[in-house]
Amino acid sequence: MADNAFDILIIGAGPGGYVAAIRAAQLGFKTAVVEREHLGGICLNWGCIPTKALLRSAEIYDYMKHADAYGLSASGVSFDAAKVVQRSRGVSGRLNMGVNGLLKKNKVQIIWGEAKVTKPGEVVVGKPSRAAYQPQNPEPKGALGAGTYTAKHIIIATGARPRVLPGLEPDGKLVWTYFEAMVPPKMPKSLLVIGSGAIGIEFASFYNAMGVDVTVVEIMDQIMPVEDAEISKIAQKQLEKKGLKFRLGAKVVKLDRRADSVTATIEAGGKQEQVTVDRVIAAAGVVANIENLGLEALGVKTEKGCIVADGYGRTSVPGIYAIGDVAGPPMLAHKAEHEGVICVEKIKGLDTHPMKKEQIPGCTYCHPQVASVGLTEAKAKAAGYELKIGRFPFLANGKAIALGEDQGLVKTVFDAKTGRLLGAHLVGAEVTELIQGFVIAMGLETTEEELIHAVFPHPTLSEMMHESVLDAYGRVIHM
Amino acid sequence: MADNAFDILIIGAGPGGYVAAIRAAQLGFKTAVVEREHLGGICLNWGCIPTKALLRSAEIYDYMKHADAYGLSASGVSFDAAKVVQRSRGVSGRLNMGVNGLLKKNKVQIIWGEAKVTKPGEVVVGKPSRAAYQPQNPEPKGALGAGTYTAKHIIIATGARPRVLPGLEPDGKLVWTYFEAMVPPKMPKSLLVIGSGAIGIEFASFYNAMGVDVTVVEIMDQIMPVEDAEISKIAQKQLEKKGLKFRLGAKVVKLDRRADSVTATIEAGGKQEQVTVDRVIAAAGVVANIENLGLEALGVKTEKGCIVADGYGRTSVPGIYAIGDVAGPPMLAHKAEHEGVICVEKIKGLDTHPMKKEQIPGCTYCHPQVASVGLTEAKAKAAGYELKIGRFPFLANGKAIALGEDQGLVKTVFDAKTGRLLGAHLVGAEVTELIQGFVIAMGLETTEEELIHAVFPHPTLSEMMHESVLDAYGRVIHM
Repeated sequence: MADNAFDILIIGAGPGGYVAAIRAAQLGFKTAVVEREHLGGICLNWGCIPTKALLRSAEIYDYMKHADAYGLSASGVSFDAAKVVQRSRGVSGRLNMGVNGLLKKNKVQIIWGEAKVTKPGEVVVGKPSRAAYQPQNPEPKGALGAGTYTAKHIIIATGARPRVLPGLEPDGKLVWTYFEAMVPPKMPKSLLVIGSGAIGIEFASFYNAMGVDVTVVEIMDQIMPVEDAEISKIAQKQLEKKGLKFRLGAKVVKLDRRADSVTATIEAGGKQEQVTVDRVIAAAGVVANIENLGLEALGVKTEKGCIVADGYGRTSVPGIYAIGDVAGPPMLAHKAEHEGVICVEKIKGLDTHPMKKEQIPGCTYCHPQVASVGLTEAKAKAAGYELKIGRFPFLANGKAIALGEDQGLVKTVFDAKTGRLLGAHLVGAEVTELIQGFVIAMGLETTEEELIHAVFPHPTLSEMMHESVLDAYGRVIHM
Repeated sequence: MADNAFDILIIGAGPGGYVAAIRAAQLGFKTAVVEREHLGGICLNWGCIPTKALLRSAEIYDYMKHADAYGLSASGVSFDAAKVVQRSRGVSGRLNMGVNGLLKKNKVQIIWGEAKVTKPGEVVVGKPSRAAYQPQNPEPKGALGAGTYTAKHIIIATGARPRVLPGLEPDGKLVWTYFEAMVPPKMPKSLLVIGSGAIGIEFASFYNAMGVDVTVVEIMDQIMPVEDAEISKIAQKQLEKKGLKFRLGAKVVKLDRRADSVTATIEAGGKQEQVTVDRVIAAAGVVANIENLGLEALGVKTEKGCIVADGYGRTSVPGIYAIGDVAGPPMLAHKAEHEGVICVEKIKGLDTHPMKKEQIPGCTYCHPQVASVGLTEAKAKAAGYELKIGRFPFLANGKAIALGEDQGLVKTVFDAKTGRLLGAHLVGAEVTELIQGFVIAMGLETTEEELIHAVFPHPTLSEMMHESVLDAYGRVIHM
């Protein structure tokens, strides 16, 4: 096979792309992945991972400010914004190098540049062409460059980018996207966050913890609109206790950009309010990167700005596949990874099967954390189910009290007729690590009976998962 | 029914007893529980719960000492031992009151005193008779006292107490059990811990974090002897990095008690060594409280110091049941709770079934934490299984790196023939909250395939559970 010929060529080395590439290589395919800016994609370089590092610094800073509550003391508790950012960049850098190493170890060829599918089986790679102010990693050693490449199977995994709303265009200085918000040159005194999805809330939570006066504007009538309303309300209350301010059912209609501040006009319930802040973070969702890939000329079907793909990533054009954010919601790294694996295994002819999208968990790492899987109470009702709902509060859990984390809720939603677990919704400490138990349970089509018989270890937060199930069936113990 | 007559009378209000009492009340039984010192038992008052509070202070103290690693700073980082202890006592006190409230709410009658079963159906309660230096909570309001009580069903849930080895007898001043270790009047400079089970290791970890020079003596050749050997080794290495010292395959043959110090003679490999320390913690396991209950006269069968009970808590004498520690290992609160529920449901005639003891998880809250369920690699081999073993290190997990917690391992043990998950063994941050996913999986008789298809959220530590399974089947991604 010629050097520029591959079995599988993947466009985009984010979590979907690089995982698909590694799995493809494991299955014996000659594999290449084209990337134009950073191995590991937004998630690893400018998203999930570096925010977790920032939030960790914020978490520890918060502990230190409340040292007295644990019988501890210290004076002059402070942070060095540059060092906090540097740590976060170091974490991303380490993982970025890790992906490079994994690709090499698995003999996946990296091609550095911007790809366009010229016809089924052919990809032309040109030089990267990103906006100048957006960050970019150096070209990895051993990468191929611009040129024409062939591959029987082409997987598009180009991800997504921040959604730009008219009038709210980011400018890299006053109005930030997650790129700039991740590396503040100094801490602003005040901040307006537009959008209360995971990205918006995580930044809001981080900056609030670092002492910034933060206001969040959300167009819907609850924060984190995809979450169960009851959970969102608890999260909101806790965040407000920490000093965060929310404007719900509100939108920013105008931004007046000054030398070193922005005045935002916020409209809610027919009334307008002006808020002046140092910086604005625009976090009104993301849009899929479907442009400049040659999709139209190829006749690849798109819908609502995303590529239409079946449960195996197959698009309307044979030999062209799409996975991850570009293939539609939920736009989550773990969904992208699994789609990548399923797509490649199907190409190999393995007996794989599509993901159950209703069993994909979601996590938000604000403080308190939020995690969920399956149907919210409202959606389960709308779907016509008769429900049994279980609730257990952190207030009644021994480990939560011992940790000093006694605010939160574990809510479970069961189909009253069959006992099937339809959804689980959690807010509180470490719930992003707890949710997997419910994911496993739903994957195995668990009923309440099996969860009731499971022995959760004591003393753990996870006991609340058990108690929530018991509560749904009228037999909670610790409440 | 007379005031002193009950359907179910439970002796001991620890986790097994009070949970059984609540469940019994839920099922409509007129229920009483006899307790002689503290509602919630050792676990809640002098065990699992207050140690978690102490360890939380130690954890945050440790963060503060390493603030620089997170881009933070503070000076004069210190602790107030009295306040750390006070916080821990407060947590226990709050939960103790909580159990009191739960029993009242469920209309469970508390009887305060020491119980003896005089014949099937009859219990005589006398005044409590504990050793003077051991702590005791005041009698709850509304409790009944000494007298004769009747109940068709008598459940013995008297728990366990520290094992006393000849020559190593605790004295409350120089040689401590967990009672004194929980409330140090001041921090000792040096400490010898005898026994490296969960209790010993947790105290060793706590005191080490607070700056005490700690040496642990373990008679077996690995710390935490019930855990998988590979996991124990990793935990040991991490604890040693923090300054803990271990003597394995060693025993304390003599303690010379002085005015304010103890010289211990430690024997290992035929050689003797003398170590002088301020205090000693004797944590060489626990023994069941089977004495003074009238068991011999009744003919209740015991074995290896525990009451013999079947999967429903039924002893050799009809109408007399035993649950929790007193009914044998594993001596864990969550095992006791489930046994209590199963016992009461069986009395009610519900279609319950015995616990699968091989699916009871165990947790140790040292730093790093250890958690496990099912067979260790060695035990699975000894049982004749052909194995597939999966391993995934914290070093390769994004969230672990972002948290600054990149040391640890998730190990999974599968039956190679059937793909059944036989065991899971974890060491590292938050593993006590992760293990429940494997518990649920084992309860549902999961095979590797279902765990591979489960979508673990990104970025979480729980992704390592997935990767460990992938590794067992030669398809790990991030390693």
